[in-house]
Amino acid sequence: MSDHGNAAGHGQWGPPYLLYLGTAADDLAIKTARGLAYWRPDWCVGQHRHPSCQFTLGLPELGFAEAKAAGADTMVVGNANAGGVMSPETVTDVVAALDAGLNVVAGLHQKLRDNPDIVAAARRNGRTLFDAREPVGQIPVGNGRKRAGRRLLTVGTDCSVGKMYTTLALERSMRKRGIKADFRATGQTGIFVAGGGIPIDSVIADFISGAAELISPAREDGGWDLIEGQGSLFHPSYAGVSLGLLHGSQPDALVYCHEPKRSCMRGLPGFPQPDIKTCLDANLAAARLTNPAVKAVGVALNTSKLTEREALVMCREISGRLELPCLDPVSMGVEAIVDNLLACCAN
Amino acid sequence: MSDHGNAAGHGQWGPPYLLYLGTAADDLAIKTARGLAYWRPDWCVGQHRHPSCQFTLGLPELGFAEAKAAGADTMVVGNANAGGVMSPETVTDVVAALDAGLNVVAGLHQKLRDNPDIVAAARRNGRTLFDAREPVGQIPVGNGRKRAGRRLLTVGTDCSVGKMYTTLALERSMRKRGIKADFRATGQTGIFVAGGGIPIDSVIADFISGAAELISPAREDGGWDLIEGQGSLFHPSYAGVSLGLLHGSQPDALVYCHEPKRSCMRGLPGFPQPDIKTCLDANLAAARLTNPAVKAVGVALNTSKLTEREALVMCREISGRLELPCLDPVSMGVEAIVDNLLACCAN
Repeated sequence: MSDHGNAAGHGQWGPPYLLYLGTAADDLAIKTARGLAYWRPDWCVGQHRHPSCQFTLGLPELGFAEAKAAGADTMVVGNANAGGVMSPETVTDVVAALDAGLNVVAGLHQKLRDNPDIVAAARRNGRTLFDAREPVGQIPVGNGRKRAGRRLLTVGTDCSVGKMYTTLALERSMRKRGIKADFRATGQTGIFVAGGGIPIDSVIADFISGAAELISPAREDGGWDLIEGQGSLFHPSYAGVSLGLLHGSQPDALVYCHEPKRSCMRGLPGFPQPDIKTCLDANLAAARLTNPAVKAVGVALNTSKLTEREALVMCREISGRLELPCLDPVSMGVEAIVDNLLACCAN
Repeated sequence: MSDHGNAAGHGQWGPPYLLYLGTAADDLAIKTARGLAYWRPDWCVGQHRHPSCQFTLGLPELGFAEAKAAGADTMVVGNANAGGVMSPETVTDVVAALDAGLNVVAGLHQKLRDNPDIVAAARRNGRTLFDAREPVGQIPVGNGRKRAGRRLLTVGTDCSVGKMYTTLALERSMRKRGIKADFRATGQTGIFVAGGGIPIDSVIADFISGAAELISPAREDGGWDLIEGQGSLFHPSYAGVSLGLLHGSQPDALVYCHEPKRSCMRGLPGFPQPDIKTCLDANLAAARLTNPAVKAVGVALNTSKLTEREALVMCREISGRLELPCLDPVSMGVEAIVDNLLACCAN
């Protein structure tokens, strides 16, 4: 568990978690909660839904006081609607959770601590509020100096192509093999999963690479930091974030993430997806600035919109073309990528 | 004068200026003050230095009360160290300036109004504080959509290689020729000089390209926006800012700025300067994402550490190698670059 960045809140908030689903109307809206339930099942004591909510994570259905009695420390407001705005129901529920003695953390654009009712409830109950998307202070300017330890960063063609999932799957696989490996979070869901991290897209622009250096500090135990990538060098809205993260991470290894069925860059009709090789080469070229020894070690393909046969054919084609293992982490696992990582970065 | 960003403060502060040099230990540290003294000499009544400061702008040396008596309205804290932190001496001097009746503006990361002593002094004297690096609210996410108007962006090998100077020199030259051209400020000095702009390195990381789109909005009058570049794609601390600015600016033309005598990237011993052609090509490649028609139109060389003969030889060599006009804007002017810009971007 990291002691960095917004984990400033850590110690004041943390697992065990109650996952708040609210009135979530579609699967995407519970992405954060689903990520937690999937990757950290031992930390999740239950879920709380409105009667209208059609979705479930299959966890015990708990009221706020019940959750507290069951050992929950913190409620995670894991549902996000368009714009990241809090509904009146959510505000009422957050206040009730605070009154029941839970801390509350959220990753919405609208901040918990910008709501006076929520702030008052936290104060009267001595509870902690934590906004995972809050801009973070006290981050140094990146210095680019080589630091001890080994690092892998996930990069990709676009936003939302599976970078967090892939990074966590690599962590799970490496830990099963007895390798020290720690997921380093750079986004809201990842921060709840890791219990710490820095929302890299929310720092002041001058400090992006400095934040990345802080997320993954020097480590001397021979283990790996597996850093959650963000955005894409070819996304006109967010490429600056991706480049600063790439420089600050100083990755020894890159894993490239791609969703083959997407026609344009996320949110930007008219901007086609770049070619995989072009984009991977651009990432390698930029990464060499702070780590000339960087290598690509695998491709993680999101094949959820392909048939099983199509997926296999495409993985084989990309693997041959890039001379890297290529697989879908969900349906095929990441063992071949870990094998290649260990072979490439043996020393 | 732009109506964007931090020019909000204008009207409560402004010229005539007292330029504060403090304990500046190297020439680069007084960049802001030097820029103002050069581009707006009529606005600068004097300078104030610590006894330890070895540098001067050649302006009258004034105490705070003397400056006030000489007509100064506002003291500009123009010295910046790495990270933009205020020294205790600076805090003491800012308080004394406020007590003498001056307003104070600064472009440090550490905000004037985060210091209780400074805030108290401003209040008791009824003076205005203005932080030019304040993160700016209400910036949209960049959308990459083509907008009307023609744009030139200065880029470069490193930070502090003359991008602002070059951009302002281009503005001056183009205006003399009767061409509509407006300097668009992205940094603290530029904002003081232009009376408006957005400090691009101080916006939240997700909004860098959005801020660049806002700095240079659609224009229909056939004129040029000349956008002040920042940082370098090859600077491990700040490249994310440079990339977001490049994407959001959608430049039709790039002017490349370079200081040939620098051995390493600013503030980072051990990081050599990239080759000019490599760096220019990387900028062109990245710029094509939002403007496939982008062209390099010239190279601006800072030859202040060369003899006149060395400067001429080097300009000729670079000009031949890159097939672009190459000159020192200070000693040779920028006419050849403007000629080439107009030839390249006639339509």
